Amino acid sequence: MTGTLYGVGLGPGDPDLITRKAARLIEGAGVIAYPALKGADSFARAIASDLIAPGTEEIVIDIPMTTDRAPAQAAYDVGAARIAEALEAGRDVVCLCEGDPFFYGSFMYLHARLSCRFAVEVVPGVSSLTACAARARLPLAARNERVTVLPGPLPDDELRQRIAGAESLAILKVGRHLARIRGVLDGLGLTENAVYVERATLPEERVCPLAEAPETAPYFSMILLTKGADPWL
Amino acid sequence: MTGTLYGVGLGPGDPDLITRKAARLIEGAGVIAYPALKGADSFARAIASDLIAPGTEEIVIDIPMTTDRAPAQAAYDVGAARIAEALEAGRDVVCLCEGDPFFYGSFMYLHARLSCRFAVEVVPGVSSLTACAARARLPLAARNERVTVLPGPLPDDELRQRIAGAESLAILKVGRHLARIRGVLDGLGLTENAVYVERATLPEERVCPLAEAPETAPYFSMILLTKGADPWL
Repeated sequence: MTGTLYGVGLGPGDPDLITRKAARLIEGAGVIAYPALKGADSFARAIASDLIAPGTEEIVIDIPMTTDRAPAQAAYDVGAARIAEALEAGRDVVCLCEGDPFFYGSFMYLHARLSCRFAVEVVPGVSSLTACAARARLPLAARNERVTVLPGPLPDDELRQRIAGAESLAILKVGRHLARIRGVLDGLGLTENAVYVERATLPEERVCPLAEAPETAPYFSMILLTKGADPWL
Repeated sequence: MTGTLYGVGLGPGDPDLITRKAARLIEGAGVIAYPALKGADSFARAIASDLIAPGTEEIVIDIPMTTDRAPAQAAYDVGAARIAEALEAGRDVVCLCEGDPFFYGSFMYLHARLSCRFAVEVVPGVSSLTACAARARLPLAARNERVTVLPGPLPDDELRQRIAGAESLAILKVGRHLARIRGVLDGLGLTENAVYVERATLPEERVCPLAEAPETAPYFSMILLTKGADPWL
C-alpha cells in the first residue's frame, strides 16, 4: 500500500485561519513537505509551525530565486521524487500550501507530477482573495455580479482591457508591478475606487486606499476594486 | 460599550473546513445569527451545529422563498434590527455565513445595514470556488492565468461573451439554469473541458464531467472549466 499525498491549504497567513481539517492532518503527519525560497524561511511552514509535532520528517523543496521557469521546475522534480519515495514506502505526506492549493498555489506543480501515480486529497484553504476582501471590508460580489482575478504581471494592454470589462476585480501578485498597475488604473479613472492590501491577516498587514499605497509592494499584495451596486439595494 | 458583529465564514459545508478562528468564535458566542429559507432548516446553522453551545441565543433571519428582492430585503431589515438590539446591549453577535461572508454571501446585506453603526469583523472562510476545484481535482490557476467567476443566472449573451474571453472559469449558482448554460458551453465547443460539482464537501456531493451531469441541479452547484496550460510545463 502506497501512502496518500495531502495538499493542504493553510489560508492567508494568520494561523487561526487554518481549517480544523488541515490542523488535524498536520498535527498527525509523519512526513510534511513545503516549498522554501532558497536561503529564506518557508512562509508555509511558518503559518503551520505551532501544529508540527517534534520528530515530524520534513521535506523542504528549495525553490531558486529566479524568474526563469526551468530551475524552479527542476526543484519541483527533486521535491516530487523525495515525496514519491515516502509515498512508495507507505507513508502519507502532508504538503503545506499557503492560501489554497489550487488557487495560484505551488502545490499544483507537485500535483501535476504525482497525481497520476498516487492517491491525492486536496484540502481547500481560505484564499487570499476573500481574506483581502475581509480585511479591506470590501464585499466582493453579490447576486449576479461577476468577479475577475488578474495577476499583476500581465502586460498593460491586457490589464487595461480586462479591468475595463470587469465588475468586481482583484489584482494579485502586485509586487514590483505596483507603479505600472497604478498607471493603468489611473488611465481608466479607477484609482479612487481601488483598495490596496498587503500581507493580509498577518501582524504587518497594511490596508489603505490605492492612492495612499507605498511606492514598493511585496509579492503578497493585492488591489481590490468593486464597481457593483450597493448590496443594500 | 456596544458589541461587535462578527461575520464568520463557515466554508462550503464540511464542518471540518471551518477555520479555527470561526470555531472559537462560535463556541464562545452568546448570540448567533443566521439566515434560513422560510420553512426550511438553515444550512449555515447545520454546518456549525456541533459548535453551538446550549443556551446560545439564536437570531433566525427568515428569508422568504421568492426571486423578488423586496421581501428578502425586508427580512434583512428585521434581522438587522434584532442584531442591532443585541449589539446596543453590549453583546457580541456571531453571524454564521455559508462559504465566505463577502463572496456571494448574504452577510453582505447585514454588513450594509450595520457597519456604519457598529464594530464589524469579517472572518474569511473557504469559498465554494476553491472547495469545488479541490473536490474536482482541477487546479484553478497558476502563474499569470486569469480567473473569471460568473453567476449562472446571467443572460445567454453575456455568459457566451464572458466565457469565450475567460481562461479559468467558474460558473456559480447553476441551479435551474443548468440546461441553458450547457447550451452556451456546447455552442462554444467547451462542454468536453467542463466539470460539474454539486454540494461540494457534503456527504451527498457529486462531481462528474458536465456531459454526465444530471438534468436538474441544486442551487449549490458549480461548473468549472480551465483552458490554461499544463502546470507541469
